[in-house]
Amino acid sequence: MDLGVEGRRAILLASSRGLGRACAESIAREGAHVVVNGRTEADVHAAVAAIESAHGVVATAVVGDSTTTAIHDALLDACPEPDIVLLNGEGPPPTPFGQIDEDQWQAAVTQQLLGPLTFLQRVLPGMRERRWGRIVAVSSAMVKSPNPLMSLSHGTRLGLAGVLKGLSKQAVADNVTINQLLPERFDTDRQRQMAELVMTLRDISYEEARAEQEASIKAGRLGRADEFGDTFAFLCSDQAGYLSGQSIQLDGGSYEGLF
Amino acid sequence: MDLGVEGRRAILLASSRGLGRACAESIAREGAHVVVNGRTEADVHAAVAAIESAHGVVATAVVGDSTTTAIHDALLDACPEPDIVLLNGEGPPPTPFGQIDEDQWQAAVTQQLLGPLTFLQRVLPGMRERRWGRIVAVSSAMVKSPNPLMSLSHGTRLGLAGVLKGLSKQAVADNVTINQLLPERFDTDRQRQMAELVMTLRDISYEEARAEQEASIKAGRLGRADEFGDTFAFLCSDQAGYLSGQSIQLDGGSYEGLF
Amino acid sequence: MDLGVEGRRAILLASSRGLGRACAESIAREGAHVVVNGRTEADVHAAVAAIESAHGVVATAVVGDSTTTAIHDALLDACPEPDIVLLNGEGPPPTPFGQIDEDQWQAAVTQQLLGPLTFLQRVLPGMRERRWGRIVAVSSAMVKSPNPLMSLSHGTRLGLAGVLKGLSKQAVADNVTINQLLPERFDTDRQRQMAELVMTLRDISYEEARAEQEASIKAGRLGRADEFGDTFAFLCSDQAGYLSGQSIQLDGGSYEGLF
Amino acid sequence: MDLGVEGRRAILLASSRGLGRACAESIAREGAHVVVNGRTEADVHAAVAAIESAHGVVATAVVGDSTTTAIHDALLDACPEPDIVLLNGEGPPPTPFGQIDEDQWQAAVTQQLLGPLTFLQRVLPGMRERRWGRIVAVSSAMVKSPNPLMSLSHGTRLGLAGVLKGLSKQAVADNVTINQLLPERFDTDRQRQMAELVMTLRDISYEEARAEQEASIKAGRLGRADEFGDTFAFLCSDQAGYLSGQSIQLDGGSYEGLF
Repeated sequence: MDLGVEGRRAILLASSRGLGRACAESIAREGAHVVVNGRTEADVHAAVAAIESAHGVVATAVVGDSTTTAIHDALLDACPEPDIVLLNGEGPPPTPFGQIDEDQWQAAVTQQLLGPLTFLQRVLPGMRERRWGRIVAVSSAMVKSPNPLMSLSHGTRLGLAGVLKGLSKQAVADNVTINQLLPERFDTDRQRQMAELVMTLRDISYEEARAEQEASIKAGRLGRADEFGDTFAFLCSDQAGYLSGQSIQLDGGSYEGLF
Repeated sequence: MDLGVEGRRAILLASSRGLGRACAESIAREGAHVVVNGRTEADVHAAVAAIESAHGVVATAVVGDSTTTAIHDALLDACPEPDIVLLNGEGPPPTPFGQIDEDQWQAAVTQQLLGPLTFLQRVLPGMRERRWGRIVAVSSAMVKSPNPLMSLSHGTRLGLAGVLKGLSKQAVADNVTINQLLPERFDTDRQRQMAELVMTLRDISYEEARAEQEASIKAGRLGRADEFGDTFAFLCSDQAGYLSGQSIQLDGGSYEGLF
Repeated sequence: MDLGVEGRRAILLASSRGLGRACAESIAREGAHVVVNGRTEADVHAAVAAIESAHGVVATAVVGDSTTTAIHDALLDACPEPDIVLLNGEGPPPTPFGQIDEDQWQAAVTQQLLGPLTFLQRVLPGMRERRWGRIVAVSSAMVKSPNPLMSLSHGTRLGLAGVLKGLSKQAVADNVTINQLLPERFDTDRQRQMAELVMTLRDISYEEARAEQEASIKAGRLGRADEFGDTFAFLCSDQAGYLSGQSIQLDGGSYEGLF
Repeated sequence: MDLGVEGRRAILLASSRGLGRACAESIAREGAHVVVNGRTEADVHAAVAAIESAHGVVATAVVGDSTTTAIHDALLDACPEPDIVLLNGEGPPPTPFGQIDEDQWQAAVTQQLLGPLTFLQRVLPGMRERRWGRIVAVSSAMVKSPNPLMSLSHGTRLGLAGVLKGLSKQAVADNVTINQLLPERFDTDRQRQMAELVMTLRDISYEEARAEQEASIKAGRLGRADEFGDTFAFLCSDQAGYLSGQSIQLDGGSYEGLF
């Protein structure tokens, strides 16, 4: 299927590894030029090299924390007129509600809410003027099923969800779509680290910890990062211009609710 | 993007025209063989001929009402082991609640609820045994925003939504996904007929009636059937196996709600 | 709290036992006259006697299946101008999807969808004319979390939910509210029968079966019928006239979803 | 209806005027002692005097900004073991997304998210230990229908909604319920000020501005503060202990969505 994005320009926040990297791969495979971002220089450069070599597009590295104005500047220097933006970033750690302190709240607010929104303030007007844009935010399946250990996550990600939904109602008139992907348990470093943590804490084997992760998903397996990347690519396609304001769960069918 | 469905077999209910036809075109373009169904012989045969000629797949015609056991038999004779099923059918007319009689309720129940479900009873076990299946139902954006004039529609479509969601929780373990697409105002015969109706009733021009339809959508335009078809094709892709139990609105960003 | 319903007239479908009976008790305690309905003559008459004696209101018995036109006639003979209507009825049994036959579907459609709706067609216009009405339907918590064994239940109850929501948008202009209560595991005969069933099937004690029921609810206990009845009474109060179109879960906080 | 809260102790944030005041009145009428809070000394003292005189309960004044640690201290000095807590506060002004600056975001985060949550960290453990608690937050109907002009509101209130939902799943085991009320257009000072603003901006009469407000609500009128207060009181009742984790719209039936 031709997604109609050849030659489009994409900025992908936090895309050197994991789900963000998979999004960069998928959209580059479809012919879009990409700006890859991450905090670890080696990872970013490795991603850029791999993407350029595999897909023959221009890939640009921007190393640094994507919630800061300095990195927003650098990203827009590298790509002043993005057609596609991926809002992504590392999630906060599980923390019991009673133990969350002011600094942790503020860090989560910056990371998951204000960082993405201040970047959006800079790119959305141009997309609307140029009358083509695709914005996709990586949220979490938990925003629709809040977990008491993850207050830092849904306490900020839901705010982002609300702002994006509100903005989507206006932006779609200019062929700028805004959607969210809500992942649950993909086979990335994060789940591997969590399995190692569980292995240590509960004195079980790595294989047992992984088996528990798989059993927690109705599909009986973890998601593959390329499945995530290709869904992102589809949402960025030219033919997805009528699909906006949606929050799509990629969770192996695990969500219990009707809608 | 390679959707990985070459050689797959698809049965598409009510697919000779409109959105169903667009789904048949998109999935055939990706290499799937299709069974095309509709109640008007000429339309079905025209669709079959066009699809075979354009996409080089096998297209088979089954003419008749897809809510009947006889047509379920014929569809499964034509394709005993479908990988992909589109549940689609004509919607009921707007009717004030107080005027709906028993016969209209029963017709809507058969058309939107029992017809699709009895067909599903016949195809779901085989898909699960073969461990690959993609089921997509065409519902309506209105199921999430019920309109008092459309009781016949959401009074039955919501039941279907609930049953499909329940079944999706089990089927995904066998790599069978079940999703819904919720369209609003696509540029098909149905919207053209509705514009003509409005034109007559209110003594305005066809162009004015169309302009009102477009203005009712936040995107400022109607959807194109091929946009619908390509979304269907993506949901049927091999890489969409982790995406199940979702109801995705294709409505030009018009839905007001957060989720 | 004065609910402002003294002297109001209420028709309560399926109210001789369980949750329906509790609704009748609560609203009668607040001074409303009630029509009690059920299929077992002795139960209905016992309820009527108890309510009249405890609350000093007029209670009228209508014995028979509340989904039939004959009983609709009898209910409206007993109370031609109801201010309050409870839509309630027995739910269908759990049944695996593949085993549901046409007769079971039709019975569920009649019981949960068409029965209540045809009664509503007869009472709603008068309520709107008289500019005061409170309609409450007893649904199930499962409509928001569909369970594959309960297709007969949410396959019909969700249709009812949709029609009621649509109608609520118009009726509220005439001070007629329409809401739903979504119970999960109340301490009524139904849960006791289910515990006995589980006791037999799995060879555990009744106390163990009950303990499992309680553990399945986040509150760690079953609901009390009077808690349900008082919530119904509040929704029927004069001061609840601005609260309409809502589906309120009474489930001991068990629903996982955000909204 | 006896709500079973006589002698209970309630802390109500931002309760000297408007909806918060109505909540204080309703719960005091049912016999609960109240701590009234607000930023304007005269308003708080007037409320305290009126409540004590009308309802014969103890009402205590705490003047100051309820998002600060100092006022949290003062509230808990006045009532160290609250049974009932109302989380309420003034909402942010409408602001176009592109014009929101860092300071406005931070103010909204403090006001709607961190203020209430840090207070909750202090009261929730005690309620759970004492095994009786009722927490109600005043949110906004807009959190379920995000409006692009209100990013500051739902960008923070939705985070609160998520955290409260997560916490509710644990707290209900100790008979502590957590619910939200989502008001839309009540006849308080806020709506009167908005009518005056519209009157000036658009050069229409006050009556016309009010008529537009009323027409925007499906009930055809604004809500009355006492309707809000009584719903709050019901959620705080002893018999509402099985009702938790819900977000109930008080919007004159205006919300379009099914759930």
